Amino acid sequence: MNIIQLIEKKGNNFSLTEEELKFLFQEYQEKRMSDYQMSSLLMAIKINGLNEEELFIYTKILLDSGKTITFNDLERRVDKHSTGGVGDKVSLLLAPILAANKINIGKLSGRGLGFTGGTIDKLESIPGFNVDLTLEEFVSNSQEHGISLIGATSEFAPLDKSIYALRDVTGTVGSLELIAASIMSKKLVTNSKYIFIDLKCGSAAFFKTKEEALKAAKLFKKIGLYFGRKIFVMISTMEQPLGNFIGNKLEVWETIDILRNETKNDAFLLTKEIASYIIAEINKVSFEEANMLVDKVIEDQSAFNKFIEWIKIQGGEIEVFLKQKRINTKYIYPIKTSSEGYVSFQEVDKLGYAVVDLGGGRKQLHDKINYNVGIQVLKKTNDYVKKFDEIMLVYSDKELSTKFLNHLKSLIKIEQNKVPFEMVIETIVW
Amino acid sequence: MNIIQLIEKKGNNFSLTEEELKFLFQEYQEKRMSDYQMSSLLMAIKINGLNEEELFIYTKILLDSGKTITFNDLERRVDKHSTGGVGDKVSLLLAPILAANKINIGKLSGRGLGFTGGTIDKLESIPGFNVDLTLEEFVSNSQEHGISLIGATSEFAPLDKSIYALRDVTGTVGSLELIAASIMSKKLVTNSKYIFIDLKCGSAAFFKTKEEALKAAKLFKKIGLYFGRKIFVMISTMEQPLGNFIGNKLEVWETIDILRNETKNDAFLLTKEIASYIIAEINKVSFEEANMLVDKVIEDQSAFNKFIEWIKIQGGEIEVFLKQKRINTKYIYPIKTSSEGYVSFQEVDKLGYAVVDLGGGRKQLHDKINYNVGIQVLKKTNDYVKKFDEIMLVYSDKELSTKFLNHLKSLIKIEQNKVPFEMVIETIVW
Repeated sequence: MNIIQLIEKKGNNFSLTEEELKFLFQEYQEKRMSDYQMSSLLMAIKINGLNEEELFIYTKILLDSGKTITFNDLERRVDKHSTGGVGDKVSLLLAPILAANKINIGKLSGRGLGFTGGTIDKLESIPGFNVDLTLEEFVSNSQEHGISLIGATSEFAPLDKSIYALRDVTGTVGSLELIAASIMSKKLVTNSKYIFIDLKCGSAAFFKTKEEALKAAKLFKKIGLYFGRKIFVMISTMEQPLGNFIGNKLEVWETIDILRNETKNDAFLLTKEIASYIIAEINKVSFEEANMLVDKVIEDQSAFNKFIEWIKIQGGEIEVFLKQKRINTKYIYPIKTSSEGYVSFQEVDKLGYAVVDLGGGRKQLHDKINYNVGIQVLKKTNDYVKKFDEIMLVYSDKELSTKFLNHLKSLIKIEQNKVPFEMVIETIVW
Repeated sequence: MNIIQLIEKKGNNFSLTEEELKFLFQEYQEKRMSDYQMSSLLMAIKINGLNEEELFIYTKILLDSGKTITFNDLERRVDKHSTGGVGDKVSLLLAPILAANKINIGKLSGRGLGFTGGTIDKLESIPGFNVDLTLEEFVSNSQEHGISLIGATSEFAPLDKSIYALRDVTGTVGSLELIAASIMSKKLVTNSKYIFIDLKCGSAAFFKTKEEALKAAKLFKKIGLYFGRKIFVMISTMEQPLGNFIGNKLEVWETIDILRNETKNDAFLLTKEIASYIIAEINKVSFEEANMLVDKVIEDQSAFNKFIEWIKIQGGEIEVFLKQKRINTKYIYPIKTSSEGYVSFQEVDKLGYAVVDLGGGRKQLHDKINYNVGIQVLKKTNDYVKKFDEIMLVYSDKELSTKFLNHLKSLIKIEQNKVPFEMVIETIVW
């Protein structure tokens, strides 16, 4: 087999066989195929696509490049992935709710990327929280306490990591097949029987339209089934921040408020819906019964207790955290409306980038994060506001320019009528 | 502007503006864009194509990356390019015929590539022949003597050279737009008013079908017109070797025989047709009159004298060459038919590769060529042969295996009926 001829074959829109794909990626891993050859192949894949068989083989190649993790409680084990949003703290809420229902989760998580926050960054706002567990600790914590979380390090699907780095600089990120294989290769690292994909759709998501999101959802589903997993894909909207806070520490506090039954916002409602689909399937109960099981673990504090148990087992000094001031930035800037009407958000990804600008996310790999900064979202889509009502509060440790604040204000539009809005767009069930 | 976003734009099948294309290739030349980014862009271009405007801009970028050469006799100046064939000695014949008709040619030529021979290699079989002229010598030789030839060095369109090297290893050679821009960027280096493209089509050519060849021809034509040139594209067949010899020195002898009016084979007829189209256009005469002007310079030896003048002015010791034995290889192997019927050739590129195997071409960049070896083609397409007739003679300095000789024999098929065959498939006139 010949590297150049195989790249050409894909460029001419012919399919590659299992043997050919394995050959190419092995040559790449062993450095006999160069980055400039791989990027040419990736562009050919981005444009010409992968058929189902190619997609499955490619996913397996990524998965097989690293370690896998075996749990022994598969019937009550789920994994969850979100394609990324602004203010998305669903993982922090979902894990304790499920664990309180004796459904276990052991999750590889990432740090913030671009405008989307990362679960690990949020948890590291709790002093002492440690994601560098051994695989043995990860497995036993998850099996015994119901929840465990480690960083998605280069032990797992390392080929995906190097391919992703190359895609990132060669204009080949935007390929449904490459995205689906990349995400699924990491979900397949653990042998969780159930996989829930929270696929975000909208102006602040990778998938801008329902059509694109549906196409991607079907790919996730197919890959999951091929590898013998039960998989659920929910397409939910990302046209406003999820919940009421954006920012690492602020989102942990919001999580605590929800788990202590002090707030019931849209972040809770979305989590409840996700949890209910999972519980209904695993417990063989109706969706309505599952709904009640979620409410129960919130009301009786058992979900909150699971959260505390989880944080402690991973070294987090939760008591120290709870004693700290929620808000302790130097400055608080209100963003006010200048007219009366219904709120709608524009380009909500820019709110995510604004938090990065405040210091709440990384621009470079080794940037240090300021956990305290962020944005509180007081009004949500279709809330009615009067002139000069406060819509957001910006928590910052540096003085902000009028330009920056006006930019934030420009991301909110006041409409004369409510805008069409639905939180869950489509579900592709187990 | 952002390199990655622009690659992505082309990958998503949007056109790039002049500013964007210039930016990308400038970044590449100044090493701020890496090979892996360029190869990704090239694959996107190969698959999604370039529109006319992009094609013109890209060609100009390649051209502008190096020196250009100015002649002052444009009205009687032509340049010629062949996309490459087996036994193609048209340039050697055409230049003296045109020069004898006071039409000047100053040509950048290449060495052999793959199965196609190179004009420079053929000429270097003449002792002393030198292609390393200064630009001043090149210009004055061509203007004063009607012919001059230099190597297509990296002074001219150097960006094309580096892009070609990258395409060669990244499966992106097969793009009509990239091929057309690459060839035309080198044809535009000299300001010749007239450009003749001899575009080969068939099993032993890059363009396998008439459709592909026509598409490419139209691109050549458009680029030529855009740059204010008069351009003629002839699509001719490459289903048998051109003329009766393949091999460097053998082809020079064949050229001499034709110019001395001792042979009139298909290589002469094709050259005559090309020359006539050029003479008719430049001298404003009919094609029939141009035909007679070609015959005249052959009959009165003025074309042959121009050939000798050219070789001498570039240092070639033509008297020494003419005194050498035509055939002085250690071995001569006849290839004979095993049945009776009409000759047809199969995969004639393999005859070209066979000559490379004999030592008549390079496998590696720095291989030394044996100028004496080659193949004499005694019978051509649709010639009638009897059993055991000799069809080819193989001139070799090494003993050849039965396997090698049988392989050569397998490239000739004896048919019961004549095969459809036409030398010139299509002309796209000035």
